[in-house]
Amino acid sequence: MKKINIGIIGFGTVGTGTVKILLNQRDLIKKRTGLDLVLKKVADRDLERPRDISLPKELLTKDAWEIIKDPEIDVVVELVGGTTIAKEFILEALRNGKHVVTANKALLAEHGNEIFKEALQRGLKIGFEASVGGGIPIIKVIKEGLVANKMLAIYGIINGTTNFILTKMTYEGIDFQDALREAQTLGYAEADPTLDIEGIDSAHKITILASLAYGIPFSFNSVYCEGITKITAQDIAFAKEFGYKIKLLAITKILDGEIELRVHPTMVPEHYLISKVDGVFNAIYVEGDCVGSTLYYGRGAGSMPTGSAVVADIVDIAKGINTMPVDFSEKYTIKPMQEIESMYYFRFNALDRPGVLSKISGVFGEHNISIASVIQKGRSKAGAVPLVILTHKAKEKDVLRALEEIDKLPVVSDKSVFIRVEGEES
Amino acid sequence: MKKINIGIIGFGTVGTGTVKILLNQRDLIKKRTGLDLVLKKVADRDLERPRDISLPKELLTKDAWEIIKDPEIDVVVELVGGTTIAKEFILEALRNGKHVVTANKALLAEHGNEIFKEALQRGLKIGFEASVGGGIPIIKVIKEGLVANKMLAIYGIINGTTNFILTKMTYEGIDFQDALREAQTLGYAEADPTLDIEGIDSAHKITILASLAYGIPFSFNSVYCEGITKITAQDIAFAKEFGYKIKLLAITKILDGEIELRVHPTMVPEHYLISKVDGVFNAIYVEGDCVGSTLYYGRGAGSMPTGSAVVADIVDIAKGINTMPVDFSEKYTIKPMQEIESMYYFRFNALDRPGVLSKISGVFGEHNISIASVIQKGRSKAGAVPLVILTHKAKEKDVLRALEEIDKLPVVSDKSVFIRVEGEES
Repeated sequence: MKKINIGIIGFGTVGTGTVKILLNQRDLIKKRTGLDLVLKKVADRDLERPRDISLPKELLTKDAWEIIKDPEIDVVVELVGGTTIAKEFILEALRNGKHVVTANKALLAEHGNEIFKEALQRGLKIGFEASVGGGIPIIKVIKEGLVANKMLAIYGIINGTTNFILTKMTYEGIDFQDALREAQTLGYAEADPTLDIEGIDSAHKITILASLAYGIPFSFNSVYCEGITKITAQDIAFAKEFGYKIKLLAITKILDGEIELRVHPTMVPEHYLISKVDGVFNAIYVEGDCVGSTLYYGRGAGSMPTGSAVVADIVDIAKGINTMPVDFSEKYTIKPMQEIESMYYFRFNALDRPGVLSKISGVFGEHNISIASVIQKGRSKAGAVPLVILTHKAKEKDVLRALEEIDKLPVVSDKSVFIRVEGEES
Repeated sequence: MKKINIGIIGFGTVGTGTVKILLNQRDLIKKRTGLDLVLKKVADRDLERPRDISLPKELLTKDAWEIIKDPEIDVVVELVGGTTIAKEFILEALRNGKHVVTANKALLAEHGNEIFKEALQRGLKIGFEASVGGGIPIIKVIKEGLVANKMLAIYGIINGTTNFILTKMTYEGIDFQDALREAQTLGYAEADPTLDIEGIDSAHKITILASLAYGIPFSFNSVYCEGITKITAQDIAFAKEFGYKIKLLAITKILDGEIELRVHPTMVPEHYLISKVDGVFNAIYVEGDCVGSTLYYGRGAGSMPTGSAVVADIVDIAKGINTMPVDFSEKYTIKPMQEIESMYYFRFNALDRPGVLSKISGVFGEHNISIASVIQKGRSKAGAVPLVILTHKAKEKDVLRALEEIDKLPVVSDKSVFIRVEGEES
């Protein structure tokens, strides 16, 4: 039976899950694949931290380089995260002839081109199923299952933290800060939640999916990225009135040869399957030219689900499956954000005076923005009331210019809010 | 560049899709995989039938054996369907050293053991992604993506025809016969719809998924199979009152080493993602011990989606991926249907007299069936009114015995109806 020796760098959440699976499912995997996955070494700077699995001392080391240099190790699993030392570990492992499995989306999104070049030159494989969608085998699905398709569009809820926060806000009517605090209490959000709530984590992941889908270099710097910190309970309630939910979507699609690459809060029709994906769950909608609409749903994080993806990668590498596309070198253009077209939701804080709607819609008209529906609520002689407008498809640049003008109108107080809207035009 | 010569037997719906994809996406697949998929020959008894693609004459033949015997052909794609001549084609192709790709769920479910034995002995591969879930890469997901998981349960909506009919009945309140007629008009149901509406097609497919999930021989004859012909608009309306939808689910799960294998109409909590899968779409919920809950959604049939799966199989075979599990020889026990436990929905046609509920619930009590909720509607001095009961978990055999007694009660007219219920116990 073919033996595969595995070294794991990083004995944290995902490391622990991976170790458990390698030990507990060793026989199952032998039976299923004819492969013996041998856990040879686990490295972590801190071996004293309490973990819910204990390993014999000879399996543990504080020195990651011991694993990277070990001539018996076939596959190095990088689970330390971050974009500094992890990069060195992976590059050096490749230079030492080892296949690599990683869950590190930030590293791949930001330095993937360099890493894959190194691997390609050496004929080595990089497994990265765990980098997007946790346990959902979305990388395999796009790369192998849908290999016969031109990819038309991917829409992903690929950050569990923000989906948990938006779900809480939606069902309990609470505000962002309260929902964030609850996410932190439950361990779904970090003490510093920036990467999640600003959409950066989603941007990392959609970078990876876009490279896979279109065969293009990793283009993290071209991702338009907007987080959920400005979403209010009020906007969620208005969205509901129009039949929408607000989700943080990571989007990549191709139109006339131009690729869109963006992360932002999005109003999604309530009856779409993806808008029913609640809590910490992830889902990725993939549209191919042959297969049509498909969707993949599961836990986007966590020790065991992510470990499940890591181990599947190890098996694929051991079976000799080409887990790496031929290359990521397709020529491409990323469409500038200003050029995208979308429907839009606007909320203005407008003085409750005659003619306000006509003024605002006048500005819209001048910028080729056509209004689909309006909600104006409440009456207030003194103060401002929310005026909510849904538009037909318009260009982002027209929207930005119109907003600039509208925000200068004396009848409009506060800065206006807008959220992009997906779905069929009404 | 590695060339793979392909022969297709069966130029019908799926055959046409496969041919189109092989021709249109040839360059795309070359770029992605480094493989040149060459369509060498297409066989069909009827070459005159109008198709929306025309092939050069030299690619066409009426004689399937020409493909099977052609020494240059590497992969034979069987798309004729049925369990007679298709079986001979596949076995003879294997004997001639060819890999096989098939969409034929009936054949695999009923004769898969013989076919896989032949392939295994000869070290040949059988791709069958297209046999379940159309374009959804569910076979690959279970076999490779979730390879590190013990499979706990699979719940599938894997027949588009019945899901279309139930969706129509649910949203339009129409009866089964009317919905079936509409499905036939739209081409979603065949003139003889038996295989679909009696659940047999779903039983074929769950047989295949169970073999993959548990490594067991194909066990079609052990599948409990009940179709949707007895579902009424009334039951769908009552289900809605309790917060459920009625779906035809194909279920396989393992409990204490015993495998359940069954297809029947099932009440599913409305808020479950799978209960939102409407129309001809399919979805498969897969629960693994590491990954937890996952779901895969897409078109379960059709020319291009199914062709997408066929071509993905050809690519996997060409890449040398082991598309076949080591074997399907795990020892196993299928739990007899009478031994399963479930929650249940009952509808009785009961005379509207005092004491009826007490009589019925008395029989339930004697058979260890505990009632969760009751709906009794309408008043009718002369006739019968529907009495609807939802139970906690009970054993199927106790339910059948209780029903036998209840149906004999003079206060109960007509045969009683029961539907199994999934979800958390209330």
